Amino acid sequence: MNKLQSVWINELSWDDVENYLKKENIVILPVGSTEEHGLAGPLGLDSYAAIALAEDVAKKSGILVAPPLWYGDSSHHLGFAGTMSLNTSTLMAVISDLCESLAKNGVKKILIINGHKSANLPAIISAVKNLHEYSLQNVFFAVAGPMKIAKGIASKIKDNIEHHVGELEVSHVWYKYPHLIKNEKLSKKGIDYERIFSQYSQYDLFGKSGDVIDIPWNSKEQKAFAPDGSFSDSSQSSPEKGKEYHEYMVNVLVNFISWLKTYKGPIGNS
Amino acid sequence: MNKLQSVWINELSWDDVENYLKKENIVILPVGSTEEHGLAGPLGLDSYAAIALAEDVAKKSGILVAPPLWYGDSSHHLGFAGTMSLNTSTLMAVISDLCESLAKNGVKKILIINGHKSANLPAIISAVKNLHEYSLQNVFFAVAGPMKIAKGIASKIKDNIEHHVGELEVSHVWYKYPHLIKNEKLSKKGIDYERIFSQYSQYDLFGKSGDVIDIPWNSKEQKAFAPDGSFSDSSQSSPEKGKEYHEYMVNVLVNFISWLKTYKGPIGNS
Amino acid sequence: MNKLQSVWINELSWDDVENYLKKENIVILPVGSTEEHGLAGPLGLDSYAAIALAEDVAKKSGILVAPPLWYGDSSHHLGFAGTMSLNTSTLMAVISDLCESLAKNGVKKILIINGHKSANLPAIISAVKNLHEYSLQNVFFAVAGPMKIAKGIASKIKDNIEHHVGELEVSHVWYKYPHLIKNEKLSKKGIDYERIFSQYSQYDLFGKSGDVIDIPWNSKEQKAFAPDGSFSDSSQSSPEKGKEYHEYMVNVLVNFISWLKTYKGPIGNS
Amino acid sequence: MNKLQSVWINELSWDDVENYLKKENIVILPVGSTEEHGLAGPLGLDSYAAIALAEDVAKKSGILVAPPLWYGDSSHHLGFAGTMSLNTSTLMAVISDLCESLAKNGVKKILIINGHKSANLPAIISAVKNLHEYSLQNVFFAVAGPMKIAKGIASKIKDNIEHHVGELEVSHVWYKYPHLIKNEKLSKKGIDYERIFSQYSQYDLFGKSGDVIDIPWNSKEQKAFAPDGSFSDSSQSSPEKGKEYHEYMVNVLVNFISWLKTYKGPIGNS
Amino acid sequence: MNKLQSVWINELSWDDVENYLKKENIVILPVGSTEEHGLAGPLGLDSYAAIALAEDVAKKSGILVAPPLWYGDSSHHLGFAGTMSLNTSTLMAVISDLCESLAKNGVKKILIINGHKSANLPAIISAVKNLHEYSLQNVFFAVAGPMKIAKGIASKIKDNIEHHVGELEVSHVWYKYPHLIKNEKLSKKGIDYERIFSQYSQYDLFGKSGDVIDIPWNSKEQKAFAPDGSFSDSSQSSPEKGKEYHEYMVNVLVNFISWLKTYKGPIGNS
Amino acid sequence: MNKLQSVWINELSWDDVENYLKKENIVILPVGSTEEHGLAGPLGLDSYAAIALAEDVAKKSGILVAPPLWYGDSSHHLGFAGTMSLNTSTLMAVISDLCESLAKNGVKKILIINGHKSANLPAIISAVKNLHEYSLQNVFFAVAGPMKIAKGIASKIKDNIEHHVGELEVSHVWYKYPHLIKNEKLSKKGIDYERIFSQYSQYDLFGKSGDVIDIPWNSKEQKAFAPDGSFSDSSQSSPEKGKEYHEYMVNVLVNFISWLKTYKGPIGNS
Repeated sequence: MNKLQSVWINELSWDDVENYLKKENIVILPVGSTEEHGLAGPLGLDSYAAIALAEDVAKKSGILVAPPLWYGDSSHHLGFAGTMSLNTSTLMAVISDLCESLAKNGVKKILIINGHKSANLPAIISAVKNLHEYSLQNVFFAVAGPMKIAKGIASKIKDNIEHHVGELEVSHVWYKYPHLIKNEKLSKKGIDYERIFSQYSQYDLFGKSGDVIDIPWNSKEQKAFAPDGSFSDSSQSSPEKGKEYHEYMVNVLVNFISWLKTYKGPIGNS
Repeated sequence: MNKLQSVWINELSWDDVENYLKKENIVILPVGSTEEHGLAGPLGLDSYAAIALAEDVAKKSGILVAPPLWYGDSSHHLGFAGTMSLNTSTLMAVISDLCESLAKNGVKKILIINGHKSANLPAIISAVKNLHEYSLQNVFFAVAGPMKIAKGIASKIKDNIEHHVGELEVSHVWYKYPHLIKNEKLSKKGIDYERIFSQYSQYDLFGKSGDVIDIPWNSKEQKAFAPDGSFSDSSQSSPEKGKEYHEYMVNVLVNFISWLKTYKGPIGNS
Repeated sequence: MNKLQSVWINELSWDDVENYLKKENIVILPVGSTEEHGLAGPLGLDSYAAIALAEDVAKKSGILVAPPLWYGDSSHHLGFAGTMSLNTSTLMAVISDLCESLAKNGVKKILIINGHKSANLPAIISAVKNLHEYSLQNVFFAVAGPMKIAKGIASKIKDNIEHHVGELEVSHVWYKYPHLIKNEKLSKKGIDYERIFSQYSQYDLFGKSGDVIDIPWNSKEQKAFAPDGSFSDSSQSSPEKGKEYHEYMVNVLVNFISWLKTYKGPIGNS
Repeated sequence: MNKLQSVWINELSWDDVENYLKKENIVILPVGSTEEHGLAGPLGLDSYAAIALAEDVAKKSGILVAPPLWYGDSSHHLGFAGTMSLNTSTLMAVISDLCESLAKNGVKKILIINGHKSANLPAIISAVKNLHEYSLQNVFFAVAGPMKIAKGIASKIKDNIEHHVGELEVSHVWYKYPHLIKNEKLSKKGIDYERIFSQYSQYDLFGKSGDVIDIPWNSKEQKAFAPDGSFSDSSQSSPEKGKEYHEYMVNVLVNFISWLKTYKGPIGNS
Repeated sequence: MNKLQSVWINELSWDDVENYLKKENIVILPVGSTEEHGLAGPLGLDSYAAIALAEDVAKKSGILVAPPLWYGDSSHHLGFAGTMSLNTSTLMAVISDLCESLAKNGVKKILIINGHKSANLPAIISAVKNLHEYSLQNVFFAVAGPMKIAKGIASKIKDNIEHHVGELEVSHVWYKYPHLIKNEKLSKKGIDYERIFSQYSQYDLFGKSGDVIDIPWNSKEQKAFAPDGSFSDSSQSSPEKGKEYHEYMVNVLVNFISWLKTYKGPIGNS
Repeated sequence: MNKLQSVWINELSWDDVENYLKKENIVILPVGSTEEHGLAGPLGLDSYAAIALAEDVAKKSGILVAPPLWYGDSSHHLGFAGTMSLNTSTLMAVISDLCESLAKNGVKKILIINGHKSANLPAIISAVKNLHEYSLQNVFFAVAGPMKIAKGIASKIKDNIEHHVGELEVSHVWYKYPHLIKNEKLSKKGIDYERIFSQYSQYDLFGKSGDVIDIPWNSKEQKAFAPDGSFSDSSQSSPEKGKEYHEYMVNVLVNFISWLKTYKGPIGNS
């Protein structure tokens, strides 16, 4: 690799970044998790998803990427060995500190790519909302992740209900990091959402949901209702599905960055 | 009103609550906001929504309601006079303290009714998730609000895109508190979401969304892109629409409480 | 009610408040509690006291009132069902956030009416002192409550020692919200302060105290020394006493607001 | 001094304290401040008051004293050089940590002697109330200070209104630490409380107060309304008055400790 | 790579970790930084150092490694683009949360490898000290990093004073990640420590220091006294020196882990 | 003592300090601890060390000293009666608040003298580093203590390994406060560092250390491996050794202050 052309800030020297910021002002921050993903998926699955998206989008868009945050808000998975979770308030502080650092040296637009479905979102959304209101009013923030940017394609690819350790997130990592999926151990059935969480459960994170009432569960309960860690039937996962899913999301994000490059803030005045 | 039969904890004496808890263990906590709702809506609109739902559900289900929290996370509306916001961390602490108090005297199931579309959710969801993992493992929490429990009916009632100060939330308060809506000042058009927030905006909070990238805006920007405080065309609001919307949501919540009364935790073992 | 003339911010739209602030710059913030008040008083008694004072003073003075905070620092009452307490640090944060919000849109003088005798005061006083020193140096704060503004009349009205669930606070709510007092259950005797708290107890909160040493008690202890929740003989409470007490306090506060309207800060330079 | 007989924990070795705790379980914690006390008083005046009371009471009662905390909540005095203040939250944390430490090794009753009139009280009272409710339910706390324990004698000694840098607090330190008072610089007049703080000012901290509304002032304002730092006429201070004042307070505290030695908690069950 | 044999927790599934913990109870946590390392070194240099040590020690010792933390306490480097720093309190929280997570599933001994000379140490040491005293009394913690574990070899390898961007840390990364060093840009001289920090400067972090007084500098000052980000003459760096340095440290850590495997806590009772 | 010439801020009035600050801008802040120091040393030993150094340096340099902080981060000593510890975060807040106070009235250079070997350092260093980066960029901070400023003399005076309750710290207090040392109880042997903490222990805090891995121990463990509280052989302590040690350190600090008086910040531009 030509060391001057890496998209990863960690591989560059400070003057490389300073030079980049003379021409461009966007940086991507990938946020993952280290939490159980069943018997077939690696503990770092969400991080790999964020890293893969960030890197490919960055290369296509000519944008830099900050080093990945391998840890997220995974307390509900702490019943399984290897899960390592940040408290919600800690994750908020981490996101806040990293964005403050980027802003201090001239980054004006920060795109956070969250690889961990919904559980990281309260912390990330809160952090950037408060930064944008109170300390970094002139920095633009955007938060994107598979759960929300693959809505347009998910139902066309997948064959099953997608929740934790679902067919799509497994396929995604299988495509990009094939040695990390133990495909012989993919789960063949999902949990019974309606019995566990009432009829008002958002059982398919990518599906057309009906009325939803949110019910948090804790790590002990999760171990009871999903003993092997998987919530979903992922048996029809494949690298091919992962490729289609990945490329669709990369495309969404590349389009977004094209828009963002031309955007002149503040929001509403562009 | 027969004072022994009030559903409001604030109107009862402690022994009334103690007696209630011998037979039942559910309490509803209504959470609102005090934030601008355009020229036609009162600053307390979200609180009135939460109060109206809580009270009617409580009466139908024979459940007690805690005093309302009139304040939420509304920092993005602080550009408008009368808006009073709690910081995200403060709201988390309030929710946490109130749930701890309820649990201390035997409440086992807490239903939070959030009247403030999405902005309160990161704080509320984080608070109850962490309580349930770390200090109140045996208390069941549920979080419900109009944005998620009226998905099954919204598109059948409303004629316009629903975002802040939308047709449905205005209709809701108009139906229950008619003197609080200045209907002659209802807004006739919405903001241009796509121009402001890119094509990846979730412009209709009740609609079938496509791919979404979250972009927080601050109070100064909001004042610029929505100078009168309204994001939505609410001109077709009516008390009749509000009645249909309200009754649908009351029905969802009454059904949910019926399920909840029979539920034996912990989650997944019922 | 003419909706333009409500004193409650929650009933007004943002432009109503903006117009008000062109002529006036005072807002009242009522702070109560949800805590046991014996077998005769409602859990919301302190909140009703704050609300009644705020509303009547506001109407007489032409001042706006923020929505009530129904929750205070009541941890020592947590032994009784229905009590819901904010931690001291949470209450400080709530007061601080709400005052910051008011100040952001031009409120220059904030009068907090505390309905909860002394237990809310450390948090409220600390919050406003620190705001006034560190972030809102140009906003004037005042804190008032029955315990301190009825000193001139209390001994002329009441016949008994006044402590928690005392004759005056019961009479106050009886006068304003008669359906909330179960007068047949009023307590006929007080606790033995000297035995419990030594000779240095401030047993009559409205009396001429001698030397005092402060001793905090916890919720378990309170349940033991005051099993029905009442500390005081409230048997001679009456709506008439409540009326005299209420009107005296309203008068004090109206006088104070008259002074405040003419006051030009900063303090000491007026 | 016989080193085994010092009342100061800092002068003893750990086994001395361990032996003491086999027979007795009370410790005194003196809390002062470092803040301006006019042109005549030393910055450490409040700390000296707390130290003098703690030491003399300890010697008479056979009780140990923890090392003094020289710093309190003095932010409103920060306009004057030499004032060093802890934030309210910091002071709460310090009190909390020190009491936790004492409790960990068997101290069961903690008497905090506050030398700093009212400004330290919100932090101290909050700290011990929360300790007693949440972590140290079986430890007894008491908080005493000149403003509240000299009510029975103050008006008999002093000739003037007593507020900051008042006749009694100056006399107190003059009696115990004569070299620290510059008596030629005592102030001859007090500030005009009513003009500055309205008719509802508690101008004499030891007097019979009427109706009071609390108004915090900040350090900039204080510098304006009391340019030399003194609020009170202290010109009639004397070591003789200080002696009478000191001995009265020592007596109150010795009496209290006698009661405390026989007290068997928890409160209300003794 | 055989996926079952990876030392990285992120590459394993939860049951792999659970099985590991049946036989072994040590985990390594590598902590780095993203901060400027002059014109020749990558921003991630400290992280690469921690990762390289962790991985090689883990492989030799048969121990698992948690995913790396790419961010440390680098506020003093924020004058240079690309530097991303966690606040001290945030880093403490991150370390604390990750160790709590590991402990929850049975890890009993945690070795933190810090790649960032001294600046991360206050946060890391404080975090583990407090965990070990207050919440994880039965978990053993150790903290190791190049600055302290290469004392026995440093002076034998290096030819120059070693401070920020020193000969040894550059050589280390050069050896392990050769494409990340721009050797043509290595600095040829160090800063003048004595002029900048007095004669009491610890100018050679690996040298025999004399009397030292610690003086923190901020990011603006650093930009002034070290305009290209380097403090040290690194011109004699080489992959060969890096190899010798790396292998020495790996050996120290492997020895330590051998001792640790036989260690039976608690400390002092082994 | 001439009261105008005291070096202690607590003994001066505010105008004395104001006058001092017209000519000089350095203040010393002594920080100690209250923790066990074996059977021979007083609990306040570290505080006495800090006080003695601060006072003598101040007198020789014509510099003022703030009142001492008698409490430090001593949680690992809490197994012994009389130990009173501040949490790390509390100590950070105290240091931060006191430095902010000093800076507010014109102090430009703050020298913290830490009497408590290494355990206070993470909190102190973190506090001043963050103040200097974020809020007090123009205030110069220095942190000095016996462990680092007596390196040049320690091995010439002492005859034994120096760790907690070592020969030098005992001699120091013996020299300055002879009545506080019970010399008949000095410990005759040290603990077995290598067995307890592996071969990578920094057993002699003043010695030439080899490779070191930091291992925190907790208060329960300390009570087990050092039952009388002493880690070191202090039997060869003497007032004479203390005098030599003290005078050396005073000399280092006086030299440093001479340099500091001429220093013109910011750092690197002098």
